[in-house]
Amino acid sequence: MRRVFQRRHLLGIEGMSGAEIVAILDAAESFFDVSRRSVRKVPTLRGKTVINLFFEASTRTRTSFELAGKRLSADVINISPSTSSTTKGEGLLDTVQNLQAMQPDVLVIRHGASGALHHVAPRVRAAVVNAGDGMHEHPTQALLDAFTIRRQKGKVEGLTVTICGDILHSRVARSNVHLLKALGAQVRLAGPRTLLPAAAASLGAEVFHRLEPALEGADVVMMLRIQRERLQGAFLPTSREYSRVFGLNAARLRLARPDAMVMHPGPVNRGVEIDPAVADGEQSVILDQVEAGVAVRMAVLWMLAAEPSEAPPAAG
Amino acid sequence: MRRVFQRRHLLGIEGMSGAEIVAILDAAESFFDVSRRSVRKVPTLRGKTVINLFFEASTRTRTSFELAGKRLSADVINISPSTSSTTKGEGLLDTVQNLQAMQPDVLVIRHGASGALHHVAPRVRAAVVNAGDGMHEHPTQALLDAFTIRRQKGKVEGLTVTICGDILHSRVARSNVHLLKALGAQVRLAGPRTLLPAAAASLGAEVFHRLEPALEGADVVMMLRIQRERLQGAFLPTSREYSRVFGLNAARLRLARPDAMVMHPGPVNRGVEIDPAVADGEQSVILDQVEAGVAVRMAVLWMLAAEPSEAPPAAG
Amino acid sequence: MRRVFQRRHLLGIEGMSGAEIVAILDAAESFFDVSRRSVRKVPTLRGKTVINLFFEASTRTRTSFELAGKRLSADVINISPSTSSTTKGEGLLDTVQNLQAMQPDVLVIRHGASGALHHVAPRVRAAVVNAGDGMHEHPTQALLDAFTIRRQKGKVEGLTVTICGDILHSRVARSNVHLLKALGAQVRLAGPRTLLPAAAASLGAEVFHRLEPALEGADVVMMLRIQRERLQGAFLPTSREYSRVFGLNAARLRLARPDAMVMHPGPVNRGVEIDPAVADGEQSVILDQVEAGVAVRMAVLWMLAAEPSEAPPAAG
Repeated sequence: MRRVFQRRHLLGIEGMSGAEIVAILDAAESFFDVSRRSVRKVPTLRGKTVINLFFEASTRTRTSFELAGKRLSADVINISPSTSSTTKGEGLLDTVQNLQAMQPDVLVIRHGASGALHHVAPRVRAAVVNAGDGMHEHPTQALLDAFTIRRQKGKVEGLTVTICGDILHSRVARSNVHLLKALGAQVRLAGPRTLLPAAAASLGAEVFHRLEPALEGADVVMMLRIQRERLQGAFLPTSREYSRVFGLNAARLRLARPDAMVMHPGPVNRGVEIDPAVADGEQSVILDQVEAGVAVRMAVLWMLAAEPSEAPPAAG
Repeated sequence: MRRVFQRRHLLGIEGMSGAEIVAILDAAESFFDVSRRSVRKVPTLRGKTVINLFFEASTRTRTSFELAGKRLSADVINISPSTSSTTKGEGLLDTVQNLQAMQPDVLVIRHGASGALHHVAPRVRAAVVNAGDGMHEHPTQALLDAFTIRRQKGKVEGLTVTICGDILHSRVARSNVHLLKALGAQVRLAGPRTLLPAAAASLGAEVFHRLEPALEGADVVMMLRIQRERLQGAFLPTSREYSRVFGLNAARLRLARPDAMVMHPGPVNRGVEIDPAVADGEQSVILDQVEAGVAVRMAVLWMLAAEPSEAPPAAG
Repeated sequence: MRRVFQRRHLLGIEGMSGAEIVAILDAAESFFDVSRRSVRKVPTLRGKTVINLFFEASTRTRTSFELAGKRLSADVINISPSTSSTTKGEGLLDTVQNLQAMQPDVLVIRHGASGALHHVAPRVRAAVVNAGDGMHEHPTQALLDAFTIRRQKGKVEGLTVTICGDILHSRVARSNVHLLKALGAQVRLAGPRTLLPAAAASLGAEVFHRLEPALEGADVVMMLRIQRERLQGAFLPTSREYSRVFGLNAARLRLARPDAMVMHPGPVNRGVEIDPAVADGEQSVILDQVEAGVAVRMAVLWMLAAEPSEAPPAAG
C-alpha cells in the first residue's frame, strides 16, 4: 500500500489520487481492530518520535493522534505553544526548525493560519501531518469520514453526500469535497448564502441555499458546526434562527434515503445544527467517526514513518 | 482479590463492603514496593489505555494516577479540558462518549459537579475511576488513607479517627467516613458549625464543634484544608481566627493518644489548619499518604483493567 | 565516566571541575547518535521515572528533556504548576517533597527564583537537575554549548568566546562563563553598561561596552536575547536602538575569525540581537545546539539515574 502513497507529508487531500486515498483506507482497515484487542498495541513505530504541535486547542484530534502514536509504540510528545516560547516571539517556522533539530520522525501540526504548513513542510526532514490549518484542510478528518462511509456502505463511489453548514470557514468541508470527488461521490453543499464559498460550484459540487432539496435522496448527511469564532460579525444568525432553517431534525432527515448515514466532525452543538434525537439516533455514525479516527491516524503514521519492513497487522 | 471486588467502576466508597475495601488494600500491598524497586515497573497493563480526564487542576492526584498507570506499563493520556473543546460547548457526557469511542480501558475523571460520574459511568464500556467529583466523593484518597493507617497501626477496626475542618464541602471527608465506618473505626467530625453537614450524625459519626474534645484519645487525626474556593461568602473566618480555634498545634495534639498519626490529604496550608511543626513532625504521615497513593491507584487500575491472568507482583 | 562525576544533582556549573565537565561531554558523544538511528531509543533507564517540573513555560527545554528521557526508555511525567496546586498556596519545597514521595529517580526543575534548587535538592532522594533557575544557572545549556563547540572546533581550551547581550539577567551567560573558564577558554562579555553585572570582571572574563572590539579575533560568538520580561523599566532600549549598537550582522561578524561559530540559546529575536542572514547563515550552529541538547541531557540523566551496570551505547 505504501508503494501507492509516495508522499513525504500529508498536508491536504487536494491533489491526492483516488488510489492514494484507497491505500490509506485499506491500511486503516488493518489497524482498526488493534484498538479493540485486549493488547491495544503493536510495535510498528517502536523507537520513532511523534510530536503533536497544536497551536489551537483540541481534545479530540490531539488525543486521537496521541493514541494512534502510542498504540504503534512510538514515543509521543505534546506541545501546546500557547503556554510556550511563541509568547517570546518565535514564529511557526522557527518552532518547527527547532523541533526538527531534535530529530522527530513525524510532526503533527494544528495551526490557525490557512496553508501555513505548505510553507513549513519542505524545510524539514520529518514527515508533516496537517491536523487542521485555519480554514484550509483537515485531511485526516476527511479520511476518517471516508473510512466510516466505506465501512457502512461498502463503497464511496456513486453515493450522494450532502454537507450542510458553514462551508466557507470549514477545513473539514474543503478536505471532504476533495476526497469525495476523488473517490467518485456526488457532493452537495448546503448553507446560508454568506457561508458558502463563491467558488463552491467550481469544486464540482452542487450548491443549495436551502437544506430540504439538498437532502432529497442523499446517502450521507454531514452536518457542520457554525464556527462562531471564525465569524467576525459578518453573518451571525442566532442559534434559534439557524436551527429553524438549517438544523437537521427527524422530519428533514426523512427526505434523505431511509438508510442515510448522519455524520458530524464534532464537537456537536445539539439543538443548533442538529437535533439531539438525530445526533444520538439510529442513523447517526458520529461516534463511529471518532473510532475510525484512531485507525486512520495509525495508518497515516505508519505510511509516513514506519520502516519499510513494518507491515500493518493482520486483521484480527 | 478481584473475585471480591466485582464492580466495573470505582465511583465512591458509599455502599462498598468492608471485604471489597480490604481486597483493594491487600492488592495495594503487593504493588507498594514496585515504586521502591530499581526497575519501578511491571508489565501488568501493557497495551491498555488509561485516560486522565481532569476538569479541575491537580498536580498531586493527576501525577499519582499517571505514575500508577505508567508503572503498570499502560499508555496514559492526560486531558485537561479547560484548554479544549469544552470551550466549544461540549458537555461532560459528550466528551466521555467521544473518548469512549477511542476504546480506552480506564477513564480517570475529576469533575467539579457532585455526582456527575454516576450519570456518565453506566453509559461507557471503559472502567470509570472517580478522582474527585465536586463535594461528593474522592474514593482513592480514602483508600490511600486507610492503607496508610493499616500499615502503621496494623488495622483500622476499633481505632478512633478524628477528621477536622471543612467537612461540609469535603469529598475527602465524605469518602473517609464511609470507608472508616465500613472497616469498623469510630469516626469523629470536628469543625465550625457552618462547615459541618446537617446530616453528619446520621452518617454514624460523632460531631464536635470544638477541636479539643474531638482529639481526646484519638488514634488518628486527619486535618482538612479550608476550601475557600467552595465557600462563597457564607462563612469565611480569617486564617488567623480559624487557626486559633481549629488549627492543630503541638499542645492540642497532646490531647490525642501519644502514638496518634497526623494526616492531611494536601495541599497543606501550614499555619492555618495545621502548625508547621506538626505537619512536619514525627507523628505526621502526610508524605506516607502520598506514597501510598501510587500503590493504591495501581491496585485500583489492576482491579478494573487487567486481564484475569495478571496477578499483582509478589512483594519484594 | 561516571566515576569522575560523583555528584547526586546537577544544580549548576559553578564549582564543577574541567574533568567532570569533560566526563559529561564524552558521555553525550555516546548518546548523540541515538537520535539519528532508525530506532531512536536505548533501554538505559527502563523502569526509571523522570519528572519535568516546569514553573516557567518552555517549549524547547521541556521537550528536549522529555525526549532525552523517553529515548532512554524512562517514564517521563510533565508538570506545569501554573495550572496546579500552587494556586492553592503550595510552595516549591512542598511540591517537591510531595513528588519525592512518589519515588521519582530524577526531578528536572525550572523555577523563576535564583538559587531555589539549592534549597530543595539536599532534602530529596531523587537527583535534581536544574533546567534554569531565575537569573542564576542553566547548566545543561552551557553543557550543550560546550558540546557544540567541541564537536566543531575539536576543543574548547584556548578558544576566544564572545558572549553578547543581557549578561546581567542571563542564567545562560552565567553557566557558560563558569564552564568556559573551567575548560580554559578566554571569555569576553559585551553589552550595554546597565546589562553587565558589576562583578563581571571578577568572573575572569574581559568586559566590553561595545560589540566591535569584543568580536575581534573571536572563535565563537554567542548572542543572547534581551529578556524584556526581566527588565522592569530600568533600561529598555527600543529593539531598533539595541540592534543598531549590539546586533550581530554580517559586517560585524567579519571582525571575528573567518571560521567563527555563531551561537544563540534561543528563542532568537531575528532583527534584534541578530540579523536573520547571520542567524540562518553558514556560520550559525544554532540548530546544532538544539540537537546537542538532547544528547547532553541523555548523558546527564544517565549519569544521575542509571544503574551502575548501564553503559552508554557504543557510537554508531
